[in-house]
Amino acid sequence: MSQIDLSKRELFKGAGALLIGVAAGRLLPVSKAEAKKIKVEKWPWPYVKLDPTETAELAYREWYRIFCGGAVISSVFSQLRQKVGEPYKSFPIDGFMFAEGGIAGWGTICGALLGANIVANLVIGPRITGVADGELMGSEIMEWYTETKLPTYIPKNPKVPTKDIPLTVSNSPLCHISVGKWMKKAKKSLHSPERRDRCARLTASVAYHLVELLNQWKDGKYETEGEIPSSEFEITAQYNCEECHLSKVPSPPESE
Amino acid sequence: MSQIDLSKRELFKGAGALLIGVAAGRLLPVSKAEAKKIKVEKWPWPYVKLDPTETAELAYREWYRIFCGGAVISSVFSQLRQKVGEPYKSFPIDGFMFAEGGIAGWGTICGALLGANIVANLVIGPRITGVADGELMGSEIMEWYTETKLPTYIPKNPKVPTKDIPLTVSNSPLCHISVGKWMKKAKKSLHSPERRDRCARLTASVAYHLVELLNQWKDGKYETEGEIPSSEFEITAQYNCEECHLSKVPSPPESE
Repeated sequence: MSQIDLSKRELFKGAGALLIGVAAGRLLPVSKAEAKKIKVEKWPWPYVKLDPTETAELAYREWYRIFCGGAVISSVFSQLRQKVGEPYKSFPIDGFMFAEGGIAGWGTICGALLGANIVANLVIGPRITGVADGELMGSEIMEWYTETKLPTYIPKNPKVPTKDIPLTVSNSPLCHISVGKWMKKAKKSLHSPERRDRCARLTASVAYHLVELLNQWKDGKYETEGEIPSSEFEITAQYNCEECHLSKVPSPPESE
Repeated sequence: MSQIDLSKRELFKGAGALLIGVAAGRLLPVSKAEAKKIKVEKWPWPYVKLDPTETAELAYREWYRIFCGGAVISSVFSQLRQKVGEPYKSFPIDGFMFAEGGIAGWGTICGALLGANIVANLVIGPRITGVADGELMGSEIMEWYTETKLPTYIPKNPKVPTKDIPLTVSNSPLCHISVGKWMKKAKKSLHSPERRDRCARLTASVAYHLVELLNQWKDGKYETEGEIPSSEFEITAQYNCEECHLSKVPSPPESE
């Protein structure tokens, strides 16, 4: 897929456009002076290693304030605001509350996964810089999420007994499918304290794993397992084709 | 659904916690002094009305640099960086390139829709402030997207002839379904110039509509048509249940 073709040529083309301050195709070209002011678009952002457990505890508690997507971002960036300062102090964490329920209750991407993608890409940087590890780390966390019995993290002071929170494998990064399979197994409604605590724990689980990977990256030891599914399928896609298409998985058109 | 229950009580509870600088459940309480520094979390952000056509042209061109999600954000925020300044200069637009292909090629939420949700929520603010119009505007744009023959916007200097870009209705906010239906109708591959230009035009169409709504809001005339689907379905969901479930749409468990 062209827009996620991570070829060196494209990467360096992108990086070059950024460095000389003239982004191809902009109506409002970025001057060198202006580019200097926009320090938030210089990557990687400064990062110090964080404690995964403390991060997960923060994410768990923040879920009950701003829910899944905001909570993952807050769990990492609130610590970095204190330990590093800028550019984290200038990032509007609470503005991402809308990620709840798979974007305003639409059940699309799990908000915790959106939060993890945002954090990984803002810390490491977008692939236009010439480094694709941010995008690939986000993708790696999505794949881990789809294959793992979640939630993995048990909070220190849970609001609901752990015995009431069964574990499920989503096989999908979509909130609708992840939450739906859990509700079916647990026999609990969307409004139940158990479903709410399951999503708070899942958010904590994602934040925990995110910080594990970011700490590896900080140590120079991150070797991504992330892949771009559209490169394999010739269409943007999850890995669970049969779940919706049953046995009739269509083939994408070939026009080039 | 509890996390998207827009009751006044919850809204004011959230707003109160923010105003006194002690967010319930935080491990790292926000002091009054610190809250003052974090101006990016005071809403609404300053907004001046933008020209929808100029915004769409910017989005179209930016698609070819940072793709769908980044392009929608850039089309609005790059203008506001010039016309307003902060907090837009401190927002890392390019960091959202990962929204491409429904988040790193996974086909989840259409990146242009993610960009529109981010812009609406950051300009108007999250519902924890006591105002839900940002989240509802994002949801309204998603519903418009699912029902509209897209792309609606024809760029002034298109890279591909307009006759080669058929229009399709997605019935879904998901990239996989939106792009898949278009590819099927157009008989074009993911890598084709036509598919790429379709997504660039769609991104411009979303940016155009987003600015139309933001301008209404700026004039005090925005009356949202946005709804939160999970309130209707008792599960986070799109409106096209039968498309995956066929005639066997399951009922969510009732546990309370």
